[in-house]
Amino acid sequence: MRSLLQARPEHVQPVELAKAYRLMNHGPTVLVSSSHAGRSNVMAAAWSMPLDFTPPKVCVVIDKSTLTRRLVEASGQFTLAVPSRAAAAATLAVGRTSGSALPMDEDKFEHYGLSFHAGQLGAPLPADCLAWLECEVIDEPHNQQVYDLFIGEVRHAWADTRVFRDGHWHAGGESLQSIHYIAGGSFFAASESFVTEPLQPCAPSSHSD
Amino acid sequence: MRSLLQARPEHVQPVELAKAYRLMNHGPTVLVSSSHAGRSNVMAAAWSMPLDFTPPKVCVVIDKSTLTRRLVEASGQFTLAVPSRAAAAATLAVGRTSGSALPMDEDKFEHYGLSFHAGQLGAPLPADCLAWLECEVIDEPHNQQVYDLFIGEVRHAWADTRVFRDGHWHAGGESLQSIHYIAGGSFFAASESFVTEPLQPCAPSSHSD
Repeated sequence: MRSLLQARPEHVQPVELAKAYRLMNHGPTVLVSSSHAGRSNVMAAAWSMPLDFTPPKVCVVIDKSTLTRRLVEASGQFTLAVPSRAAAAATLAVGRTSGSALPMDEDKFEHYGLSFHAGQLGAPLPADCLAWLECEVIDEPHNQQVYDLFIGEVRHAWADTRVFRDGHWHAGGESLQSIHYIAGGSFFAASESFVTEPLQPCAPSSHSD
Repeated sequence: MRSLLQARPEHVQPVELAKAYRLMNHGPTVLVSSSHAGRSNVMAAAWSMPLDFTPPKVCVVIDKSTLTRRLVEASGQFTLAVPSRAAAAATLAVGRTSGSALPMDEDKFEHYGLSFHAGQLGAPLPADCLAWLECEVIDEPHNQQVYDLFIGEVRHAWADTRVFRDGHWHAGGESLQSIHYIAGGSFFAASESFVTEPLQPCAPSSHSD
């Protein structure tokens, strides 16, 4: 079995925690990675969002049927990764298959040949991603049981400095765009950004017609 | 004062509730509108997501400092609207100003001259949006107090049939793209979509090197 664990690429650098929310502010689809007792997994999630600035918190929906759910509950940790367009096919694949269906000695990283590097916490950091948020679960049994909703405090954040540096996103090439899942294998790509000025209030006179 | 309440445009049609999650699945920035006792408001929120399919639920972060928070708590309702690129300047404006700062007899719709149409519940449906999810709050005092997190059950959903029909998004013109807030007045526009096939598993032999 070849090793899929790689050294952290040089362009992956820590992100100041106060800016971690910006890694997800624009609503990308994410990967959720997890690890417990030697078993790792990764799934896709369109349903995640930032929840707070400082300390940064996020939330994500993790269905009861998933292996990810068991690993997250057992380890108290998960990592959200923002896949690039280069990882769209892998995102779709890990979103459509269950780690539970694989033999105990094979995980989805191995099954699909997906590289990863190590983080500060236990979950693998999948390759071909633009950003990673390593989280510790804030235990909220009611949310977890009733809504499949997990809240995490971001303890470490990382980004690919080719597209996120100094707390801001920067345009990269096509393969370095974030992806936003629609349905049926379709994604929007964050390929175009624009800047706008806020709309100005109406002049009072414009109210009088 | 001119009337900003307009008839529902013909291209705005109901969306089957089982497909309502798709209106937000790709992570757009939303507007949160609310109304109680004759007072209405609208704010922007980058932190929202679908929470369930059937019955459809969503969640959104609404800060304690906002007028929206008071109106949502008092009325038990809110509407999430997916603004179009044509509404980006308005989205930025209503995201940067507080309804509390306006005179009691003026709301942000009037202040900025923003049209709206009526929904089935009480909150206004802002114009220049692509989709609307009318929600009733599922009361979760702990989430609301500790995390500013509101969960709503979607009771009525609507979309602009020029870009969302038969349960699917379709390409529209530039003004009909959803917008995804980055920071500092910058948005990604959902201007480009692509389809991918899922990555295939590695052949067992590829594991043996």
